[in-house]
Amino acid sequence: MASEFDNKAVSTIRTLAADITHQSNSGHPGAPMGLAPVAHILWSRFIRCDPKDSHWPNRDRFVLSNGHACALQYIMLHLLGYKLSMDDLKSFRTLDSLTPGHPEFGHTDGIEVTTGPLGQGIANAVGLAIAGKNAAATFNKPDFEIFNNMVYCVLGDGCLQEGVCAEALSLAGHLRLNNLVAIYDDNGITIDGDTACSFTEDVEMRLRAYRWNVLHVLDGNTDLDSLVKTLEEAKTCKDMPTMIRVKTTIGYGSENQGTASVHGSPLKEDDIIQLKKAFGFNPDETFVVPKDVQEAYDGYRDKGGKLHSEWKDLYSKYSKKYPDEAAQIDRRLAHKLPEGWEKKLPTYKPSDKGMASRKLSEAVLNAIADEIPELLSGSADLTGSNNTRWSNAVDFQPPETRLGNYDGRYIRYGVREHGMGAIMNGIHAYGLHIPSSGTFLNFVSYAIGAVRLSALSKFQVIWIATHDSIGLGEDGPTHQPVETAAALRSLPNLDFWRPADGNETSGAYKVALESYTTPSVLALTRQNLPQLEGSSIENTVKGGYAMIEDKEATITLVSTGSEVHICAEALKLLKEQGIKARLVSMPCFRVFDLQPLEYRLKVLPSGHPILSVEAYTTFGWGKYAHVHHGINTFGASAPYEDVYRKFKMTPEDISSKAARVVDAFKNSKTPLVSPIEVEAEFAK
Amino acid sequence: MASEFDNKAVSTIRTLAADITHQSNSGHPGAPMGLAPVAHILWSRFIRCDPKDSHWPNRDRFVLSNGHACALQYIMLHLLGYKLSMDDLKSFRTLDSLTPGHPEFGHTDGIEVTTGPLGQGIANAVGLAIAGKNAAATFNKPDFEIFNNMVYCVLGDGCLQEGVCAEALSLAGHLRLNNLVAIYDDNGITIDGDTACSFTEDVEMRLRAYRWNVLHVLDGNTDLDSLVKTLEEAKTCKDMPTMIRVKTTIGYGSENQGTASVHGSPLKEDDIIQLKKAFGFNPDETFVVPKDVQEAYDGYRDKGGKLHSEWKDLYSKYSKKYPDEAAQIDRRLAHKLPEGWEKKLPTYKPSDKGMASRKLSEAVLNAIADEIPELLSGSADLTGSNNTRWSNAVDFQPPETRLGNYDGRYIRYGVREHGMGAIMNGIHAYGLHIPSSGTFLNFVSYAIGAVRLSALSKFQVIWIATHDSIGLGEDGPTHQPVETAAALRSLPNLDFWRPADGNETSGAYKVALESYTTPSVLALTRQNLPQLEGSSIENTVKGGYAMIEDKEATITLVSTGSEVHICAEALKLLKEQGIKARLVSMPCFRVFDLQPLEYRLKVLPSGHPILSVEAYTTFGWGKYAHVHHGINTFGASAPYEDVYRKFKMTPEDISSKAARVVDAFKNSKTPLVSPIEVEAEFAK
Repeated sequence: MASEFDNKAVSTIRTLAADITHQSNSGHPGAPMGLAPVAHILWSRFIRCDPKDSHWPNRDRFVLSNGHACALQYIMLHLLGYKLSMDDLKSFRTLDSLTPGHPEFGHTDGIEVTTGPLGQGIANAVGLAIAGKNAAATFNKPDFEIFNNMVYCVLGDGCLQEGVCAEALSLAGHLRLNNLVAIYDDNGITIDGDTACSFTEDVEMRLRAYRWNVLHVLDGNTDLDSLVKTLEEAKTCKDMPTMIRVKTTIGYGSENQGTASVHGSPLKEDDIIQLKKAFGFNPDETFVVPKDVQEAYDGYRDKGGKLHSEWKDLYSKYSKKYPDEAAQIDRRLAHKLPEGWEKKLPTYKPSDKGMASRKLSEAVLNAIADEIPELLSGSADLTGSNNTRWSNAVDFQPPETRLGNYDGRYIRYGVREHGMGAIMNGIHAYGLHIPSSGTFLNFVSYAIGAVRLSALSKFQVIWIATHDSIGLGEDGPTHQPVETAAALRSLPNLDFWRPADGNETSGAYKVALESYTTPSVLALTRQNLPQLEGSSIENTVKGGYAMIEDKEATITLVSTGSEVHICAEALKLLKEQGIKARLVSMPCFRVFDLQPLEYRLKVLPSGHPILSVEAYTTFGWGKYAHVHHGINTFGASAPYEDVYRKFKMTPEDISSKAARVVDAFKNSKTPLVSPIEVEAEFAK
Repeated sequence: MASEFDNKAVSTIRTLAADITHQSNSGHPGAPMGLAPVAHILWSRFIRCDPKDSHWPNRDRFVLSNGHACALQYIMLHLLGYKLSMDDLKSFRTLDSLTPGHPEFGHTDGIEVTTGPLGQGIANAVGLAIAGKNAAATFNKPDFEIFNNMVYCVLGDGCLQEGVCAEALSLAGHLRLNNLVAIYDDNGITIDGDTACSFTEDVEMRLRAYRWNVLHVLDGNTDLDSLVKTLEEAKTCKDMPTMIRVKTTIGYGSENQGTASVHGSPLKEDDIIQLKKAFGFNPDETFVVPKDVQEAYDGYRDKGGKLHSEWKDLYSKYSKKYPDEAAQIDRRLAHKLPEGWEKKLPTYKPSDKGMASRKLSEAVLNAIADEIPELLSGSADLTGSNNTRWSNAVDFQPPETRLGNYDGRYIRYGVREHGMGAIMNGIHAYGLHIPSSGTFLNFVSYAIGAVRLSALSKFQVIWIATHDSIGLGEDGPTHQPVETAAALRSLPNLDFWRPADGNETSGAYKVALESYTTPSVLALTRQNLPQLEGSSIENTVKGGYAMIEDKEATITLVSTGSEVHICAEALKLLKEQGIKARLVSMPCFRVFDLQPLEYRLKVLPSGHPILSVEAYTTFGWGKYAHVHHGINTFGASAPYEDVYRKFKMTPEDISSKAARVVDAFKNSKTPLVSPIEVEAEFAK
């Protein structure tokens, strides 16, 4: 049960939160102050972690879904002895500090996932819980509970209003993830004021509808015993995730407690003085941690270290008894793929049968699924269309459903693209898996909020994005991406791949699977593609290459994916007219951009016009080409051959355009320099 | 009560759905067949519409949120006598037909909104219901119920799994929209198979948690009486939207009814034969509408026409008694802004005080809100940050809450960006409003699925997207858009604006408000901007213009928004070094692209290097500039001045880069041609 000391610790957190945001004159004091009791009880009694080694694989995970409350998280990390000093707290929200405005994975020791964009964190927590369940089911043995960690997530009203959260909560209920405890900071306040103005649903009932175990604490400000009791109860739930609604007062202790004014603005000087007085702190002092509070936290730290030691002992015994499993765990934790895995990648000759690249992707999955057991696939209810399920896959499902098991590696995400994206981020964050899931390319857009965080967090998440263009045909413009490639190519640290055939599909997978710090989107066709002369895995991994070379060319065509073979046909027609042309395949802009300048200039040289050809908007092609052939409108509903004709994406249309380009620039007063060379010229 | 005839009508719809998808060898027969009873009962007894005039302002709205079931909607439109022939049904999903793969607004008579991307339609329906409530509260008078239409929406399991739907349902419950009836086609099947594999929540309980009136029909296949009774009950609900869960069998009548195989694939020939036999139809005939069924539908059509006539009489009397209100209604229905409204737009001199463009936007809203009563504003819980609420605004709220009224023009959307976007589409679709709402630019991405449909549907929806760059400062990279502009600029038919000062902000609003068929995103700063020499509304409406001209310039800088004034400072530094430079402000790419070539070439001429400067990714700038100064990584958390310094976005950095560019190309072997001229050269 809680004591007077616990109240002191809680007050310490509250005054620190006020000091930190006051010092930086920026940030959100309200939620940290309101959540101080939750945080203290969690770390003093529940969360098993080793602050001296934040990578302990079986640590409990903590996610602050309302990331704007990160002053709280930084305070806790500091008190517990993670690599975060009091000076770091004092440089909250300043340039290059370890305490940025929202928690960033990879930037601050002890931060499990990057949060702030509302709703993402709780969905990440669902992913962490899925990964934990899968790890336990895959590796635990009788008497060896190597993986049994809990996932704790704090979230606020804002998260609960977001659709991405709703998707993840519903799936978590379906999957019966009893290793997940979500703590809802029910403070009744959002930026616009009282939640009465926009959020009057019955949250507990909604969560019960999702088949969650729902508990509550009616006084989360002072009733620490109730917090302890409820968190203990949560851990005993056998077949459901638990949501604890904790009624708190935002900015508890401030003169403005319970109002929106303490949400996003630091407390005024006077207010901090009265607050410290009320909590028995010296109002003249700032950033104070009473000695006994720090000693207690040192104790929690040491207790965590001891738990980690015990786990290491257990794991050491496990390694002896189950060397293969342990070797696999070690390899996966080190993010190393199995030696020689890439030899399994299918390769193709031009005489091989043409196939849709979604089927070529399936062939890759079938070839590597056993080889790379960390691959955790799935689809947002488009399994048969995305071809994301390898032939011997088992579904990840609660065993009681008889639809699969927790050691299954295929997740039925339902029609929940955004939730899927954020859950994949959580799965990656656990550290043992490579999440890779399917939807139509057009609906990756639904999830872009999560995709962006994959890229920012440097998370290896692979999207199998089929039906990648007007080539999906009959479904029409509502389902035909024309702008999605540009959107994804413009995102830092994301590889957007559009392979042209079997070898390029294998090459795209090779880079995607070997890129531990970069997410990838593989854009794949619904329609069949021929196997091309000149393609290879070796070429593909450079991002762009000359597929058809001609030293005397008067034009270069540069294209991607399903338009490459059409361009190859166009080159034949040009040849008949005596026009010499080159063809460049450019499956991934970003990977091409990383090649040496000399190589890039060889692929896209100066001296003749470069024409880009792609069944997408031409936006963004200016970096490689002078003239563009694309689709700067939305698509159309019809069999795909008709749609390609409508948008002039046939060999005849392209060769005719190329011929006109050659003609226009033949006697031009404006000699053409490759955009690559313009850039090089300046770089000199 | 229903009769044997009703069963015959239902069977007619079912066999037509089988024939249509079989003929096109594409499409989704299952949901149309399962939903045939719902559709027949709705149109025979409930939906008030005039098939001969689909624009009747007080018509009941119907939204098919599971848009893949559109064969059903096309059948109903045909039977009712909308402009859709049997031949149109036969050309389902073929090029340029009136019956594309998903329903498209503006393409097919009688389609209220474009659906197919799951979850959008139900959120559109919420928007239609909001618009209807607002129209009624604004214009109805005692004895003159000019606006009292209902909104009916059919949705499936897929829609209910989507987050955008969850957001909209929660808000609809909060807003007590009793003019909305949603019919949930509970057929237990999605593409991946039984909903048991991913969707096991208790939907009725969830809807009750959202404070919806929840009803159900346990046999939606044959119990037509129950459908009638339940729909009647739904209309009597005084203070809640109603959800009717209708248990149906997907592909009812097919040998594969109740399985995923009838979801997205046409029935086989044999199956259609047995189906027709079972329903008492001649299996040798296709596309059959029995005479009595067509006569009945002619009757429903005539009844609807009569209702419309009666409404016209009422409206005519209303126009006499309330000429001002009627004039406003007529003007708004004609999508004409009030004469001279643009004179209200604020203008600024360089000596005027600098302001953040979010505040400049607020000044515009304050100036025009009374002038343009069709403007319906709001924010996704960032009212105080977005500055979207004009000073005398009233909230749109149920009167019982005492927080506002239904004639209020400010919507508290809550933290629901995607729902907000889709709801705005619905509000626009009603025909009487210009929806315009705020969030951070970074979180427009959450809603891109809805933004895309605004652009595709040609819906005037205005996003007030504040905190538009690294200039938001302390919140850090999770909240700083660097790629969002590129993503939005690559979308067909969307105007992405980034005004540089007060005049440009007014100019952006001018174009956005006058563009009835184009959505706009206004990217606005958190930080202050000076009023610039050379800016004007007249210049801004061209999308791009020379702000600082110099005939002897050796370089052009082209920039947008908050970087324009930094470039102007850089020009002064360049001048000190004897380098003559021009400055182009480019607030909207798309509007600039629509200007005559001659003008564009004057703004971005050949002969010297063009350097783009923007605190975003450089992706996409190749169409205007040779060399790019931008941010091709994510941002950083710190006071904004520090972040600008970190990313070299100061006058010193920019002038130094410009000087190096001038130097690099001074004696270059590669004379520089404007990308605009390259394009022009080819166009010749």
